Amino acid sequence: MSTFTLENEAFAGLVFYGGLCLAKTTAMSTVTAVYRFAKGSFPSAEDAKVLTKDPEKRKRLLQPNEEVERTRSVHRNDLENVVPFVLLGLLYISTNPPAATALTHFKLFTGFRFLHSFCYLIPLPQPSRVLSFTGGYLVTLSMLYRVLTA
Amino acid sequence: MSTFTLENEAFAGLVFYGGLCLAKTTAMSTVTAVYRFAKGSFPSAEDAKVLTKDPEKRKRLLQPNEEVERTRSVHRNDLENVVPFVLLGLLYISTNPPAATALTHFKLFTGFRFLHSFCYLIPLPQPSRVLSFTGGYLVTLSMLYRVLTA
Amino acid sequence: MSTFTLENEAFAGLVFYGGLCLAKTTAMSTVTAVYRFAKGSFPSAEDAKVLTKDPEKRKRLLQPNEEVERTRSVHRNDLENVVPFVLLGLLYISTNPPAATALTHFKLFTGFRFLHSFCYLIPLPQPSRVLSFTGGYLVTLSMLYRVLTA
Repeated sequence: MSTFTLENEAFAGLVFYGGLCLAKTTAMSTVTAVYRFAKGSFPSAEDAKVLTKDPEKRKRLLQPNEEVERTRSVHRNDLENVVPFVLLGLLYISTNPPAATALTHFKLFTGFRFLHSFCYLIPLPQPSRVLSFTGGYLVTLSMLYRVLTA
Repeated sequence: MSTFTLENEAFAGLVFYGGLCLAKTTAMSTVTAVYRFAKGSFPSAEDAKVLTKDPEKRKRLLQPNEEVERTRSVHRNDLENVVPFVLLGLLYISTNPPAATALTHFKLFTGFRFLHSFCYLIPLPQPSRVLSFTGGYLVTLSMLYRVLTA
Repeated sequence: MSTFTLENEAFAGLVFYGGLCLAKTTAMSTVTAVYRFAKGSFPSAEDAKVLTKDPEKRKRLLQPNEEVERTRSVHRNDLENVVPFVLLGLLYISTNPPAATALTHFKLFTGFRFLHSFCYLIPLPQPSRVLSFTGGYLVTLSMLYRVLTA
């Protein structure tokens, strides 16, 4: 039986939890877009041009906004963490880990990641963000260890 | 027969169209480098040091340039969209979608992505960029739906 | 025999060298965190809040620092290069390249990437960073060529 099929419980877990984390990551594009309209802060001259004819207002629409930058940071943080997680997940599956161990890794990572975004966006007082970040990071390191010693 | 072989038409499609999108993404490094030299705008002190001995010119070489920042935004936008697309593509293939459906997804995404970069770099008036972005985004969501319900 | 198993020497090489490059990429989070504390430069208001009660010091803790931005650039550069490399690596393996050729690609890329981070972080005088970047880039292009012509 091939390792990379949905009949392999560990791989099916990666498909589901990896998919969930990627859904969360790409959803940040929508969150950023909503904040851009809510706060009136856009990245490029052609965006301001289509929204108003007033040159003064156009300038204001191109000012960076703290909350928009925050959603972009959450997005970048996901790219830095979710993408390596899914890639390592695929390499990790090839080492045939016990399904229960693999699923625990995937569930923990997913939980910590959602918690991290939650802490970052609200934002909750530190060290909540640092702790949820570190949780997901340790899961990644554990998978990395198995991948490199396989 | 294994799912992840080139004999599987859907997977062969991902290899080609995913490869094409990744080619476009990494090509942005070259585009950015060309703009950096054309506009004289570099990221680090050691870059300016090797280009001129004049301290005034060095300072000017380290000023950010609007068009360089634009190519970097296109690159970042690709990382935010192409990378999840290829990762989801691999998970999606494991759900054994009909080859024709899979190919339509991959072709549409690739078309929208190239269009998006084109709109962003020229730049064409809005909402051209928003529409091409949304097109690719919806394709990703459709693949995501199949992955999460598999 | 399936292509994506550790018995396939080329794939085992991707698991090891791809894992090594991803380890290096995620390690940049830790390097950045160390620099943030060493230089006293943090990204968000809630970070400063937990570190000091003095409003003046809080403001200073939120100023960007050149060396912190440098480690973040190294991290972004890895995301732009390592992630496409591992993704292309997976597509490339599906084209059944000779194991020796594949391993040479993976080893060269890994070498150039570690060299690049080294040049960027120290920093060594240019063109050391440009050359190590270009080396890894050419390896990626060679893999890309095989993927697109498969």
